[in-house]
Amino acid sequence: MIKVAVNGFGTIGKRVADAVSAQTDMEIIGVSKTRPSHEAMIAQKRGYPLYIADISKKESFEKAGMKVAGTVEEMVRAADIIVDATPGGVGAGNKAMYEKYGKMAIWQGGEEHEVAGYSFNSSCNFADARGRQFARVVSCNTTGLCRIIKLADTAFGVKKVRATMVRRGADPGDAKRGPVDAIVLNPVTIPSHHGPDVQTVLPEIDIVTTALVVPTTFMHMHIIQMDLKETGDRGKFLKMIADHPRIGLVKGYTGIKSTAELREYASDLGRPRSDLWESCVFEDSVSIVDGKELYLFQAIHQEADVVVENVDCIRAMTGGASTAEESVAMTNRALGFETI
Amino acid sequence: MIKVAVNGFGTIGKRVADAVSAQTDMEIIGVSKTRPSHEAMIAQKRGYPLYIADISKKESFEKAGMKVAGTVEEMVRAADIIVDATPGGVGAGNKAMYEKYGKMAIWQGGEEHEVAGYSFNSSCNFADARGRQFARVVSCNTTGLCRIIKLADTAFGVKKVRATMVRRGADPGDAKRGPVDAIVLNPVTIPSHHGPDVQTVLPEIDIVTTALVVPTTFMHMHIIQMDLKETGDRGKFLKMIADHPRIGLVKGYTGIKSTAELREYASDLGRPRSDLWESCVFEDSVSIVDGKELYLFQAIHQEADVVVENVDCIRAMTGGASTAEESVAMTNRALGFETI
Amino acid sequence: MIKVAVNGFGTIGKRVADAVSAQTDMEIIGVSKTRPSHEAMIAQKRGYPLYIADISKKESFEKAGMKVAGTVEEMVRAADIIVDATPGGVGAGNKAMYEKYGKMAIWQGGEEHEVAGYSFNSSCNFADARGRQFARVVSCNTTGLCRIIKLADTAFGVKKVRATMVRRGADPGDAKRGPVDAIVLNPVTIPSHHGPDVQTVLPEIDIVTTALVVPTTFMHMHIIQMDLKETGDRGKFLKMIADHPRIGLVKGYTGIKSTAELREYASDLGRPRSDLWESCVFEDSVSIVDGKELYLFQAIHQEADVVVENVDCIRAMTGGASTAEESVAMTNRALGFETI
Amino acid sequence: MIKVAVNGFGTIGKRVADAVSAQTDMEIIGVSKTRPSHEAMIAQKRGYPLYIADISKKESFEKAGMKVAGTVEEMVRAADIIVDATPGGVGAGNKAMYEKYGKMAIWQGGEEHEVAGYSFNSSCNFADARGRQFARVVSCNTTGLCRIIKLADTAFGVKKVRATMVRRGADPGDAKRGPVDAIVLNPVTIPSHHGPDVQTVLPEIDIVTTALVVPTTFMHMHIIQMDLKETGDRGKFLKMIADHPRIGLVKGYTGIKSTAELREYASDLGRPRSDLWESCVFEDSVSIVDGKELYLFQAIHQEADVVVENVDCIRAMTGGASTAEESVAMTNRALGFETI
Ligand SMILES: NC(=O)c1ccc[n+]([C@@H]2O[C@H](COP(=O)([O-])OP(=O)(O)OC[C@H]3O[C@@H](n4cnc5c(N)ncnc54)[C@H](O)[C@@H]3O)[C@@H](O)[C@H]2O)c1
Ligand SMILES: NC(=O)c1ccc[n+]([C@@H]2O[C@H](COP(=O)([O-])OP(=O)(O)OC[C@H]3O[C@@H](n4cnc5c(N)ncnc54)[C@H](O)[C@@H]3O)[C@@H](O)[C@H]2O)c1
Ligand SMILES: NC(=O)c1ccc[n+]([C@@H]2O[C@H](COP(=O)([O-])OP(=O)(O)OC[C@H]3O[C@@H](n4cnc5c(N)ncnc54)[C@H](O)[C@@H]3O)[C@@H](O)[C@H]2O)c1
Ligand SMILES: NC(=O)c1ccc[n+]([C@@H]2O[C@H](COP(=O)([O-])OP(=O)(O)OC[C@H]3O[C@@H](n4cnc5c(N)ncnc54)[C@H](O)[C@@H]3O)[C@@H](O)[C@H]2O)c1
Repeated sequence: MIKVAVNGFGTIGKRVADAVSAQTDMEIIGVSKTRPSHEAMIAQKRGYPLYIADISKKESFEKAGMKVAGTVEEMVRAADIIVDATPGGVGAGNKAMYEKYGKMAIWQGGEEHEVAGYSFNSSCNFADARGRQFARVVSCNTTGLCRIIKLADTAFGVKKVRATMVRRGADPGDAKRGPVDAIVLNPVTIPSHHGPDVQTVLPEIDIVTTALVVPTTFMHMHIIQMDLKETGDRGKFLKMIADHPRIGLVKGYTGIKSTAELREYASDLGRPRSDLWESCVFEDSVSIVDGKELYLFQAIHQEADVVVENVDCIRAMTGGASTAEESVAMTNRALGFETI
Repeated sequence: MIKVAVNGFGTIGKRVADAVSAQTDMEIIGVSKTRPSHEAMIAQKRGYPLYIADISKKESFEKAGMKVAGTVEEMVRAADIIVDATPGGVGAGNKAMYEKYGKMAIWQGGEEHEVAGYSFNSSCNFADARGRQFARVVSCNTTGLCRIIKLADTAFGVKKVRATMVRRGADPGDAKRGPVDAIVLNPVTIPSHHGPDVQTVLPEIDIVTTALVVPTTFMHMHIIQMDLKETGDRGKFLKMIADHPRIGLVKGYTGIKSTAELREYASDLGRPRSDLWESCVFEDSVSIVDGKELYLFQAIHQEADVVVENVDCIRAMTGGASTAEESVAMTNRALGFETI
Repeated sequence: MIKVAVNGFGTIGKRVADAVSAQTDMEIIGVSKTRPSHEAMIAQKRGYPLYIADISKKESFEKAGMKVAGTVEEMVRAADIIVDATPGGVGAGNKAMYEKYGKMAIWQGGEEHEVAGYSFNSSCNFADARGRQFARVVSCNTTGLCRIIKLADTAFGVKKVRATMVRRGADPGDAKRGPVDAIVLNPVTIPSHHGPDVQTVLPEIDIVTTALVVPTTFMHMHIIQMDLKETGDRGKFLKMIADHPRIGLVKGYTGIKSTAELREYASDLGRPRSDLWESCVFEDSVSIVDGKELYLFQAIHQEADVVVENVDCIRAMTGGASTAEESVAMTNRALGFETI
Repeated sequence: MIKVAVNGFGTIGKRVADAVSAQTDMEIIGVSKTRPSHEAMIAQKRGYPLYIADISKKESFEKAGMKVAGTVEEMVRAADIIVDATPGGVGAGNKAMYEKYGKMAIWQGGEEHEVAGYSFNSSCNFADARGRQFARVVSCNTTGLCRIIKLADTAFGVKKVRATMVRRGADPGDAKRGPVDAIVLNPVTIPSHHGPDVQTVLPEIDIVTTALVVPTTFMHMHIIQMDLKETGDRGKFLKMIADHPRIGLVKGYTGIKSTAELREYASDLGRPRSDLWESCVFEDSVSIVDGKELYLFQAIHQEADVVVENVDCIRAMTGGASTAEESVAMTNRALGFETI
């Protein structure tokens, strides 16, 4: 059993903890919070030992009826590997602690590539993780881009990618961030950083990205165009998507045309937290124009797609599986996850 | 086993079907849809026999890989009782069919009180349902109002209620209805119809209501003020809420201050579809002003609170339980439902 | 000519500057900005001398083609009176500077009553401003409450006020603040601070307020109920509203039922920046229930209603008009402002 | 004086009426409404004779204090040319009436190209309008695309255009349409109809478009990529944009990064109804990648950009100006319109 600690039990951390817990070859030995909150109550209900960053706050947890297991440092010592899901930028500051205790660690996409020196995506570069102390699971958007670009590259060769990310403004549980009524260019400059971020995983890909933020809470929408090396074949590509363990096809007859209807479907399927771990490609959007141009829309559940990647990354680093296929199958099976 | 059919497998209908299915004393013998869609796929996955209103559309269902069990009329004949969850106004038109086959039926809040001649809320008037052929479960807002008013009336006597409903604009899965950026008076006139609707269940209550619509998808928010007959006691009332099987208390230490955070909590708790079947009273808002004025905020999950009421209503009408307490306990236990 | 400086040329400040400029008895001698921006460009286009808080940033203004007139301190020295419209909390820190140069100053509702020791509303306490060095124009919500409560008190006597403020989440030009999809209790506790804030102007009024935030940008909506001392008369009250120079009546035949339609109307009327300086009472909502309870909805344009109050407050303090009626008429006439 | 009637005094129609009124060579002889409303009141205030489609509703207008000049048919007879701004699809039905009276007519983008047989954009094909009885001003999105594509084609030659339209969900004054919290693919299929629509004006352009709808009210955002025939020159193109009478440059130092800030700027500039008649290209986004790929973001005010095109189209058809340059200059001057 691989002993896993989750540092930062927030949007991503709580999902990773549940996904790790569901696996047969790993277990959660602790999670961390900074303040008593409804998320801390959830950690208690799940039976995850609760560690806190600032031990002087112990009393405020206890007053709310929560048991504190110790400090984050104690949690790190007790773990084989730490999934760091603290807010973007905070994680880098924890590196010294992981080094001090000689522990493996995985950061999220809010940290720079350089923090870990290696960026991971299970569909692309699983094998390279073996033997590393540090890795970074790329962001939700980059994860979604890597999966589909790799697939198209395998199918037809990819000469150039142009992609626009229409991003959700705030996570569903976030009552503070906006915008309320605006389309925000983020950044105004072109290209955005997403292209170079894809290249940390797929360095050979020529890609230009643009990004906007809109007032929605659930899922980013990607508009993707790829210049292909060979003539594309729509039927073949649809079949490859249908067979991919981390990409789902939104079928035309479901009538689903929006992120709202996709969430409703995930929720009706009984997915925990309505999570869509797979990239959701809209079948009717997949088009080959002029033979060598591939177009498609895909929706990416920002809170979920990286969760299964974290589980695979743990196995990739610790040697818990020898191939991506093996790990992905183990992860999916333990979660009861079949793509839509 | 009470044989239950759900006519209209939409937002409310699919939830009622799942809740009925979970009970030990009743079963779903069929559900109806008008078009193949992602909801129809869910019915298939759940194993609910799928009946269709317009049998000429059979082929379009079959082309999408769905099996059609027959017409709505055949479904009605096979059932002991029908839960009619067709869109508001459509249900009334089905009355003749239920009468023709001598079946019991339950409508939802989108229909007028007069359609059934009797409006139901399990915390208020369970016993009156016994022996009736027809009943109507009051709307989500009215259900929420009835539960808390009845409780306050029991505790201190209620002289007058003034309540404002800040309503969600569209259900989460609805990508069409707005508004986008507006506060809409609905209606502009005062009072709104919610007060008289409460009186269909609690005729003795003096109540004035106002209602607005805002651009959110999850939960209505009620601002409630009640003039009490006796001096109020905050501690006593909080305890009564905590003990109520259909009202939950949002504790201050959870840090929850909004509908978004409440949904996140429901989702983290693992509630199916993040459903909050209970009214959610904000503990810190419960206030007694000048001795005899009670104030509070409560959030009402529009898609969920009436679902458990429908289950109780089936038992109340068919004699499956002799008291509200008994039925509510059976319903909650079968769903694994403990209030927040 | 009264020499007016506007410290903080933002949402409120730029409107006050334009309103002051339009008057015949006062002039703008300077406005201040902290950074070059589109608002600074507007100041230049209007010909308002541009002063800056941090003179070391002079070059960055000049690079953007803007002329800097000097420091904020120099602006203060050149003025008879300063309207401080810096962000809430910042204004208090400027008091020492205004004292140092012996200048009159007016703060906005984001500052505490204590900063000025006197809170102003032209419909309520104009005369009390005479001879004061400092005043505070109450917030947009409090301004809206004071106007209508004072009017009802004059008409029928007000025994008690219960009011709910459904507040806009962000100003229209703000692309950062949320929420996106949430109703936020702000505060969760009851009552909110708005009641005591009304009492800084109308100390004799018994009032309980509650407040929520929703994802809209234009106008707060107030749901107001008042217990009257005498029996109310709807017709009389509607006439009093129609005659009030700062309260407008949204007529039923306009079909306007929302803040969005109200903005459209203001914009069609050609109001500068679509500003609604008046409180907008919905005619069809004005109701007398049981003889002595008055109910109504009013919409308050958060960016605009306090603007005309600032102009009146300048006159009230400097003696530029001897009565509220006189000043209000002067202000309105200069702006071409007739209530809707 | 060209006598202009506006059939359908709504979002577009009321703006066209005001813009026509401002010109020295044309006048409004009537506008039409179907119901008394706040827009009808505006027509009265502006002094536009008010005609109504259904004369049996005359009384309801008069009860609201509005004077009815006659029927739509009478208005048509009195005009030289009709601008038809009825809702999309309704306009086609009016063609027979315009033919019956031998009147010239201009439809909007909600009608098919075939209704008029000729689609207009003043920057592209002004001269072709001369002598025609019927024309159609292309939609807001197509107008925005045509202007910039034509400019790039003139500068460097355009080999291929790929464009995504992120569209506003509802107009600002619309309190009904959504979505509330969804990104909607509209259509799911690729390409969208906007490409062929551009080709009704610029038939030689190879273009693929995609379109989404998001919960905002003000402006569509275009993400545009063009393959150029010659190597692009950023400086040259920025200068051409700056010189274009219908395209504005959003400068970096304004700090404007979103549609919300753009509206604020338009409103501060004192533009009537905050209208942005020009396409708004974000200076910092204009990029040449790999020599021959041009990228940029442009925001399009859906309610405004076609308004000035309608005025030009009237002149183009009636011979009121002999070149596009002449008409555009006349239109802009009369409106006091200089691009941002
Ligand atoms: N939310 C998303 O959509 C998303 C998607 C992909 C990747 N990410 C990345 O995942 C990481 C986490 O983001 P999130 O959205 O889960 O954030 P979050 O704010 O939801 O959760 C962060 C958690 O870290 C805890 N925390 C804060 N400071 C801490 C500290 N000093 N020590 C320990 N714990 C601390 C907080 O209590 C909170 O529970 C970031 O790098 C982010 O960029 C987020
Ligand atoms: N959505 C809510 O928030 C909510 C809350 C409480 C009560 N209600 C009430 O519940 C009822 C159902 O509302 P909903 O929101 O679930 O609606 P919905 O539109 O989500 O679902 C209605 C279902 O009825 C089906 N249907 C439509 N026409 C039909 C017909 N002629 N015959 C058979 N089936 C037909 C549709 O396929 C759909 O599945 C209404 O009375 C409504 O007022 C809704
Ligand atoms: N926006 C509203 O709806 C509203 C309504 C009524 C009252 N108010 C109150 O008006 C005041 C101003 O609010 P606002 O919304 O106009 O804020 P804002 O942020 O729009 O504008 C504030 C301006 O002050 C300038 N500024 C910031 N720091 C400064 C400093 N240290 N010195 C000088 N200038 C500085 C900024 O450049 C900005 O132009 C606050 O007290 C607020 O509570 C706001
Ligand atoms: N709103 C936009 O963003 C926009 C942008 C560009 C083009 N357009 C196009 O402009 C046209 C008008 O759209 P709009 O947004 O102004 O619509 P709208 O609904 O705002 O206005 C339409 C007007 O037509 C009137 N009307 C309705 N039925 C009528 C009838 N039978 N006879 C006469 N008048 C009638 C209505 O009273 C209303 O005033 C459509 O073709 C639309 O596609 C709209």
